[in-house]
Order: sequence, then structure tokens, then C-alpha cells
Amino acid sequence: AQIALLPGDGIGVEVVAEAEKLLQAVAKKFGHEFSFVRGLIGGCAIDATGEALPDETLSICRASQAILLGAVGGPKWDNPSAKTRPEAGLLKIRKELGLFANVRPIKASPYLVQASPLKTEIVAGVDILFFRELTGGLYFGESGRKTNPDGSETAFNTMIYSTHEIERIVRLAGQAARGRRKKVTSVDKANVLEVSRLWRQTFDRVMQAEFPDVQTEHVLIDAMAMHLISKPKNFDVVVTENLFGDILTDEGSMLPGSMGLLPSASLGADGPGLYEPIHGSAPDIAGKGIANPLATILAAAMLLRHSLHLETEAVAIEKAVDHVLSRGHRTADIAGGGPAVSTVRMGELVL
Amino acid sequence: AQIALLPGDGIGVEVVAEAEKLLQAVAKKFGHEFSFVRGLIGGCAIDATGEALPDETLSICRASQAILLGAVGGPKWDNPSAKTRPEAGLLKIRKELGLFANVRPIKASPYLVQASPLKTEIVAGVDILFFRELTGGLYFGESGRKTNPDGSETAFNTMIYSTHEIERIVRLAGQAARGRRKKVTSVDKANVLEVSRLWRQTFDRVMQAEFPDVQTEHVLIDAMAMHLISKPKNFDVVVTENLFGDILTDEGSMLPGSMGLLPSASLGADGPGLYEPIHGSAPDIAGKGIANPLATILAAAMLLRHSLHLETEAVAIEKAVDHVLSRGHRTADIAGGGPAVSTVRMGELVL
Ligand SMILES: CC(C)[C@H](C(=O)O)[C@@H](O)C(=O)O
Ligand SMILES: CC(C)[C@H](C(=O)O)[C@@H](O)C(=O)O
Repeated sequence: AQIALLPGDGIGVEVVAEAEKLLQAVAKKFGHEFSFVRGLIGGCAIDATGEALPDETLSICRASQAILLGAVGGPKWDNPSAKTRPEAGLLKIRKELGLFANVRPIKASPYLVQASPLKTEIVAGVDILFFRELTGGLYFGESGRKTNPDGSETAFNTMIYSTHEIERIVRLAGQAARGRRKKVTSVDKANVLEVSRLWRQTFDRVMQAEFPDVQTEHVLIDAMAMHLISKPKNFDVVVTENLFGDILTDEGSMLPGSMGLLPSASLGADGPGLYEPIHGSAPDIAGKGIANPLATILAAAMLLRHSLHLETEAVAIEKAVDHVLSRGHRTADIAGGGPAVSTVRMGELVL
Repeated sequence: AQIALLPGDGIGVEVVAEAEKLLQAVAKKFGHEFSFVRGLIGGCAIDATGEALPDETLSICRASQAILLGAVGGPKWDNPSAKTRPEAGLLKIRKELGLFANVRPIKASPYLVQASPLKTEIVAGVDILFFRELTGGLYFGESGRKTNPDGSETAFNTMIYSTHEIERIVRLAGQAARGRRKKVTSVDKANVLEVSRLWRQTFDRVMQAEFPDVQTEHVLIDAMAMHLISKPKNFDVVVTENLFGDILTDEGSMLPGSMGLLPSASLGADGPGLYEPIHGSAPDIAGKGIANPLATILAAAMLLRHSLHLETEAVAIEKAVDHVLSRGHRTADIAGGGPAVSTVRMGELVL
């Protein structure tokens, strides 16, 4: 299988390097052949080509079974009036490859839960699987700005969804729920937004027709922002639109006590899936060799599971990570001021 | 001064009754004359008139100096396909009275902070003042739904803001910051939304020109959803658009350990302000006499301060509430299973 590696910027380079070593070890141990190709994305791509997602990177991705991404961005490319910005690369790769489903597990590791800003009794045992719609809504709707006769300006963005976009993400959520606690929570703002009313009706129709064995509920986005903190254990599979998902998955990422452990997968109907840690490029610690590679390593496990259908291999990685944590090894971000190992050492420990 | 009372549905009736008694006591003690007029809003208004906000209520409000609202809604009016729903009354009163600024203090009472889902060291001392824009954005932009040739449907809502709408809420935030820690955080999604880019530019322009003494920062909505949990003490005044504010203020309401203590004010350029508890109509406990009236009582204090400019009287109420809590009196929602007083008794204690 061919795997595209897009390290991106900042610590992206360091953490993808560790995940690559691990994938190589998995190939050797389990008798697979993985080939790796590298592509530019984000700030480094802007520097080299003027574009955040060069065509060459896109071709590399299209020719691969799966994509492992590091992170993009940094102060160098932060100028708001720049012609293009690193994030544009993320939005473009999602749209071009049709990666409509962002899948984010939020699981509290028993070894790190005490680092959560939430009380241990609230977060211990949390296990949520988010499905965020990734190629629709306000992110890709029509937008514009105009100057009014009096010199003031008006700007707009459009939140827009069609039935089939809602159906396909709801189906993925329903399928996932069957392998879990058989409950799906759909989040919307149906008391205000017409889009949410279509979302809710479509969700109900698909779930009733195709997943009658799965329990469902609707929660408004504002209520969900509360419940995610006050009773996170109530949720199993959660499905929502693009912007609500952006907000809720980031809010949810605080629960486990370390963002440095959370992976995410972005999947399409066919073609390669994209896997990445949810953390950013952390320019402040880039190049110091202290970044936590575990989220990227766990993203590699998701890659094996979802794109290469290598469940045993995925579980082997997840168990190794768990074991390393159980033995007390920590990178600086999760060491709580205690002794910490380097990025490379953490990679070796998992290996 | 004339004060409009809109108790609404569920526990709204019970909690507004206590606040009214308190306002009457304040009038007597400090030598003011308050007259009270009552209006229907929400489910009870739908039952009586078919409309969630009858014209008569609107006239009553327009003729008053301030409005005290309870809560609206309940299972009886929850049918999503109903012609009108209780929330429509809220949206209409905001728009009709030009209540563009929703002001929500989030302050952790030292007496209740241990009930927070967050760790005490994270939330003790939190003191945030949110300014949520309330009459623009996705809530009031153009919306619609159409059936496509293949039978599928497409729905849209428009997030739209003009310069002057942003300017006026930013000004209120800047003014408030001067009386506090002189810092304003503006929340947007400028890396994706054109509306947010206009928001950010307008914010910067107003703050630089009119509030050069106030420190400013921009935080993306997804990052803010995290930081509000992980480092809430970093924030003083926060200003944001309608939907982001809806989500963040509700998320923030979890910090103090009790929603039952949080008031909110909705203000316009002139005309009456509207004051209410942030909690809902709680149909499950309505009529039982156990609801917590403190949020509504504190909303009445905000009413005295902002609409009647009676600062001493407002502080007197706030101190009384604090004193009652310091003495250990609790309604059921904040009693943590311990002994609890009734709604009426809590009102008497504050009196
Ligand atoms: C960088 C930004 C455009 C992106 C998003 O909003 O989708 C990020 O926050 C994410 O969640 O991947
Ligand atoms: C009931 C609903 C329309 C309303 C809103 O979204 O504004 C509520 O959540 C609020 O915050 O007052």
C-alpha cells in the first residue's frame, strides 16, 4: 500500500517522522509492504510554490491508499491580508478529495485523566465518537462582502446543506453506533435555523428507515456545549454539521486531559482517507524535539484500521501506546512538570 | 418607573413572583415608585392569542422603562411542525425592541464553586462579562428551502453583519472593559468566514480609535470553546456574534457550578432593556415551588443598575443574595442533595 506523508509545518515534521517509523515496523512485523511518498502542504508549501496545497501534493494523495498529515501553520504565515494561508490547504484537500466525514474519538486515558480541567468523576470513562460533516455548511457556502452607499460594509456567509450530504454522514454515524452503544446524538439549532430543521428531518428519516435498532436523540448546539462538560458520559456517537462539529470536537478535546493523544480521520465515499493529530503545529516548541508524537501515532493506527483494514495492526499500536503510558513514560506536555522523554524517545518506546 | 413583567411559562411564573416582591421592597426602602404591568409571552401567549409575542405585550414593553422576563417553552408547545413556537416570542421581542446586546456576567460564587464540573482551581475567581450580539447573524439572515429536480432538498441560512452592527456592540464591550480589567477578547472564525474578517477589522478599528487604553485579543471560536474550560480566568470582557455567543455563554454557564444564579440583560440603543435568568422554563419542576429564584432576583438587580441607574439598590440586592448563600441557604438545585428551601422561602430570605 502507498501512504502519503504530509508533515506540514512546525512539530508536524517531528511527529510524522515517529509515526512513519512505527508504520514501517508494523509492515515488517506483520509482513506488509508500505511505500511512503511525501508532499507539501501548509506554510512550507506556500514558501516553496506559492500555494497551500500544490497540485503535486494532490496527485500524490490521489495515488495513495491513505494520507498521514502532521499540522499546518505558524506565525510566519499568519498575516491576515496574505493572499493565501496555510489553512487554505486543509480546506482544499478536504473538498478536492471529498473527505466529508471527520471522525474524532474522544477517550479519556485512565493514565492522564487527572490532568483534565474537569473533575475526574465527570471524565473518567468518557468515550465519545464524533462525526463532523466536513465539506459543507458555512465553510463552503457562498460568501461575499460589499460596500454600502454610506461607506459601511456588509459581509455574509451561507450555511447550506442538501439532503444527500446529511444522509451520508448520518449513515456513517449509524453504522459506527452499531459497533458501540447503539446510540446517536444529533446536534443542531433547529429552533432557529432552517438548515437545522432539514438536518433533523433527514437524520430522523435515515435513522428510522435504516437503523431502527439504534437509539437517537436531538440536542441543541447551545445545550450540547453545556452537556459535553456536565455529563459527557451520556454521549456515545455524536453527529453534527461542519461548524458545530469544529466547536464541539475542540471543546471535547479538553476532556481527556491531553490534546496530545487525540487523533482524527477524515473520510470520503471512496479514495484515500486523511489521518492527523488534532493538535496544531505548535510553533513555540517546533524543532526542540519535545513534541508528543502519540496523537500522530494513534492517527496512524486509525489509518491502518479504516483505510487499510488492518484491525490487528491498529490494535497493536493502540495497545503499545497504552502500555507505554501505563509504565509512566511522558512527553513534556503530559508530564505535569515531572520528568519527560523526547519525541524520538517516545517513538522508540512505542516501537 | 414602569416595569413590564413577562413571567412566561413553567417556573418563569414562580421566579418572577419572587423578583417582583423584591423590587417592591427596594422601592419602599429606597423611596422609589415602581409600577408593574404584566404581559404574555411564549407558550402561554400562544395558548391565549395564537402568537408567541402578542402586540399587546409589545405595547406594554414599549411603554415601560424595563422588562423582567421569566422563561418560555415547554413540552406542550414542542411540536416542531407547529405554526409558531414559544422561542419565536424571544426572537421577535429582541428584534422589535432593537435589543442588540446580550450581556451575561459569568461569576463563580465562592459558595457554590465546588458544584462545578470543573476543578475548583480552574474556576475559583472566574469573572467574565460576555457581550453577545443579539439581533444579527444567522438568526435573522435570509433563509430558505427548496426541492431539487431529483427530489432532494436544500436548505440555507445566511450569516450576515454590517459594520454598524459590529461597531455598536464592540463599543459597549469597550466601555465595560474600562470599568474592569481593561481587556476585551473578540471571538470569531476569521480563518474561514468572510463575516468574521469584517468583524475582526471593525473590532480592531473601533478599539484602536476609541479605546486605545484597552488591551485586545482575537480568539477563534473553536479555540475559545477550549480555553473557556482550560483557562477561564484569562478572560475579562468577551465580545462575539450571535450564534457564537449563544454557544459560548451556555458553555460558560457551566463554570460557576449553578446555572440557577446567572442573570442576563438584553439592551438596545434606547428604550427598555430586557432582563431574565439564563435558565429555561424547567417544565419538570414547574408548579412545585422548588425552583431557584436567585438568577431572576439577580436579573432584577441588573435591571435596577442598567435601566433605572440605581446602582446602590442593585448592589443591595447582590449583597443580600451573597449573604443568604454565605449563610448556607440553598434551593434544591444547588443543595447537592442536602436540605433545601422553597422558592418562596428563598425569596423571603433575600428580602
Ligand atoms: C484550521 C481550520 C480551518 C480548521 C477548521 O475549522 O476546520 C481546524 O480548526 C480544524 O478543525 O481542522
Ligand atoms: C431559545 C433560543 C432561540 C435562544 C437563542 O438561541 O438565542 C436561547 O438559546 C437563548 O440563548 O436565549
